[in-house]
Amino acid sequence: MKIAVLGTGIVGQTYASKLITLGHDVMIGTRNVSEKLNSSAKDSYGNPPFGEWYTKNSSVKLGTFEEAATFGEIVLNVTQGGNSITVLKLANAKNLNGKILIDISNPLDFSKGMPPSLLPELSNTNSLGEEIQKLLPSVKVVKALNTMWCGLMVNPLMINSGDHNTFICGNDSDAKDQVKRLLKSFGWIDKNIIDLGDISAARGTEMYLPLWLRIYGATSNGAFNIKIVN
Amino acid sequence: MKIAVLGTGIVGQTYASKLITLGHDVMIGTRNVSEKLNSSAKDSYGNPPFGEWYTKNSSVKLGTFEEAATFGEIVLNVTQGGNSITVLKLANAKNLNGKILIDISNPLDFSKGMPPSLLPELSNTNSLGEEIQKLLPSVKVVKALNTMWCGLMVNPLMINSGDHNTFICGNDSDAKDQVKRLLKSFGWIDKNIIDLGDISAARGTEMYLPLWLRIYGATSNGAFNIKIVN
Repeated sequence: MKIAVLGTGIVGQTYASKLITLGHDVMIGTRNVSEKLNSSAKDSYGNPPFGEWYTKNSSVKLGTFEEAATFGEIVLNVTQGGNSITVLKLANAKNLNGKILIDISNPLDFSKGMPPSLLPELSNTNSLGEEIQKLLPSVKVVKALNTMWCGLMVNPLMINSGDHNTFICGNDSDAKDQVKRLLKSFGWIDKNIIDLGDISAARGTEMYLPLWLRIYGATSNGAFNIKIVN
Repeated sequence: MKIAVLGTGIVGQTYASKLITLGHDVMIGTRNVSEKLNSSAKDSYGNPPFGEWYTKNSSVKLGTFEEAATFGEIVLNVTQGGNSITVLKLANAKNLNGKILIDISNPLDFSKGMPPSLLPELSNTNSLGEEIQKLLPSVKVVKALNTMWCGLMVNPLMINSGDHNTFICGNDSDAKDQVKRLLKSFGWIDKNIIDLGDISAARGTEMYLPLWLRIYGATSNGAFNIKIVN
């Protein structure tokens, strides 16, 4: 399947690599292709520049946000949450309409110190998932996988034999079914993918991030997830 | 030990019953004792009036918030989050100073529809736990147990052989150790009580509530908790 990944950071790289491994045709979208390829700047986490990753993963196509949105049958938003709306405007609704957009980003606000809080206008009574759905009413937005470190998102078998939970939500049932199939191709167990309902449930999964960050801070181990027990 | 429970709702009743069973001397605090005893009103969840519970649990003492705060060596805040600050002002700092206050409440905001959101002024860059610590700087506030249904808080063995997680945070290490001992007396396993650091980590545990509420909505089962797996 043709899948577009909007965002060149570690999360985007992780998805692109995984999707290629699974036999998909992948295009990463970025603002300015040549600038991105030629930049020698490390990201804010100290990761190597994108170009370094790309030389080892050149089967991934690279295009502008608009080209990637046009290319993808399914589109993944893995941009920084604070930039997602701007990026999706650049991607342009006309290239996205009718498609499934999997929103994996979190509206983290780094402006008020560490650990980050959430952007006030995108939390509590709103969420990034909902804001994207409002911006793109003809797109099938499914919030998914945003509650853990990206390595685990695409490789759940890394811990506890894959027995832990992930959440999806969105307004379109068929779109959620298709996203579920993609998650299962990553190794997610069907019963562990919890459908929380419509896109407003993104409030819940995004507001979990502050707890995630505190657990990470207390344990110094990001390769964890939660398992619902009852 | 003398323990005060501020709040007469289901959570307060659950704690008072459990603490009596464990041999503690317990006083529940309320705004107006005779009004509370004589009221025939069900609570907002349709639970029977407090007086009905109290006739079966009369070994629990009943007093005003101020009397209960004076009585307790440890004080539990289980009032509705939106009322907690008012209640603690009535309890009066002079009756609480130097003591451990375990804050179990969540700042739920029912004014914007269901499921509730969080009170904006007590979320994201603030929390109820922190607000209480600011109000009562000489009290050792420990946020604990606020991430699950009250039945599980005091009886973790009810599910998964007690193997699931709870979180504590607060600025005073000795106070957290003492709260840990109380939690262990409820059945919590030492390794499953995660210390998230200072009281600002209450932002994390309180902001988990919207996810809890969505999981509850999707599964129709409140007797669940999360277990960290890695």
